[in-house]
Amino acid sequence: MTEVIETIASLRLRLETAGSIAFVPTMGALHEGHLALVARAAELADTVVVSIFVNPLQFGEGEDLDRYPRDLDSDVAKLPDDVVVFAPSVAELYPGGASETLVTAGEAGTRFEGASRPGHFDGMLTVVAKLLNIVRPDVVVFGQKDAQQVFLVRRMVRELNVPVTVDVVETVREESGLALSSRNRYLDADQHRAALALSGALNTAAASATTRANALAAAHEVLDAEPAVDLDYVELVDPATFLPVADDYRGPTTAIVAARVGTTRLIDNRMLQLG
Amino acid sequence: MTEVIETIASLRLRLETAGSIAFVPTMGALHEGHLALVARAAELADTVVVSIFVNPLQFGEGEDLDRYPRDLDSDVAKLPDDVVVFAPSVAELYPGGASETLVTAGEAGTRFEGASRPGHFDGMLTVVAKLLNIVRPDVVVFGQKDAQQVFLVRRMVRELNVPVTVDVVETVREESGLALSSRNRYLDADQHRAALALSGALNTAAASATTRANALAAAHEVLDAEPAVDLDYVELVDPATFLPVADDYRGPTTAIVAARVGTTRLIDNRMLQLG
Repeated sequence: MTEVIETIASLRLRLETAGSIAFVPTMGALHEGHLALVARAAELADTVVVSIFVNPLQFGEGEDLDRYPRDLDSDVAKLPDDVVVFAPSVAELYPGGASETLVTAGEAGTRFEGASRPGHFDGMLTVVAKLLNIVRPDVVVFGQKDAQQVFLVRRMVRELNVPVTVDVVETVREESGLALSSRNRYLDADQHRAALALSGALNTAAASATTRANALAAAHEVLDAEPAVDLDYVELVDPATFLPVADDYRGPTTAIVAARVGTTRLIDNRMLQLG
Repeated sequence: MTEVIETIASLRLRLETAGSIAFVPTMGALHEGHLALVARAAELADTVVVSIFVNPLQFGEGEDLDRYPRDLDSDVAKLPDDVVVFAPSVAELYPGGASETLVTAGEAGTRFEGASRPGHFDGMLTVVAKLLNIVRPDVVVFGQKDAQQVFLVRRMVRELNVPVTVDVVETVREESGLALSSRNRYLDADQHRAALALSGALNTAAASATTRANALAAAHEVLDAEPAVDLDYVELVDPATFLPVADDYRGPTTAIVAARVGTTRLIDNRMLQLG
């Protein structure tokens, strides 16, 4: 039986004898992508802690907080027996209803996902900081799927001197190339097919990656051919700054894309070598 | 010989065998007020760590960052031999020059000291969060002199689940009643005499503390009688919210005052029972 702990006090008590700790923060709705993080965590420490918490602080007005999938029993059933699950209530993590103290991402939190989702990254960093203070892991494992999140968490850990190692696991994909996401379940068959344009665009960009302009033109061609894809952005960013690379830049970049398919917002990214 | 450590890596290594840790963050220019914090810390844990770091992030444009007193040798000489001093350079704590990730105080950080010093409390919380992550103390000791700082640090620790106990030590005063401050050294004899109006006003308010209005009127009378005191604010706040109490409030409050004497900004506070 997988152990499920709901309070901070019980978790801290349980972890006193846990040895080294690897931590996987999630919002539940677990899929193979999450399970890859858990498998990686098991390689890295004596005890694996998985948190399952849909963080209201990182959802904006009119976003899908209410309809975000929640099924704790089904999530727990997917996890290995020896994982410690931390599944606090909103009142346990935000006894005051919200948090007036925030960990803020600054300007880099207002671009890309942050432009579409004001306050999202401040809410994300705040709950990650809280969870790191509660779990006190040796290593925390994130998925590369959320590239901007990974960038901002790494920067927070560095800038706030958080005593933890950040480990990042490659995005898990369907055979079709579609990146796994808890939100994929909202897609009907036609939308699912249309959504393949995201990974398709990134792959096409990589295949023609001589310059930023060429790579983006190739990506746009794939995305424009799919009318069901409502593109938000596609860009090549410097992995060190998450700023768009210059036109004459040569070297490693992260190609990022976000689009709405129907009412479902999807994101994807891949590494890409320019020049 | 008091041990002085300048790098994060060396400090972490040193503290691996430190037992329980009590931490006193300071900006140096140590006086008896700081030494009272250090004495308290020594009662609370096996090892006392004192940081000496003038944090540029909590000084605004036109403030006294450049002239803020710095004399590490003199500070170290004042401390007990068994204290571990952490005295990092600015480059050690802010290798990127500044921090894009911030811990922010929200609305409560924009009132009183925050109104006069925009960004001050975000800079303070950010460096305190960093230092707590570096030192990982069991208890951190602050002086009640900086009442709003104490309020915001306590709230940060609670809201971000920082695993530390906050201990607060009463303000140390001269015989005259003037609260000790590193900035008192800027006062000439006349200004020093004028500065007594701050503690005098708080004491007079406490003596006539039937209602907020009566207490504030009594305080203003003392402050107004001293033309060298350029008052910024005097107020009675609820210790739980740091918001001004209502006119019909009865119970414990914190009476706070800030004023400029010459070019020197001074603050003071005291507990006061209304009704």
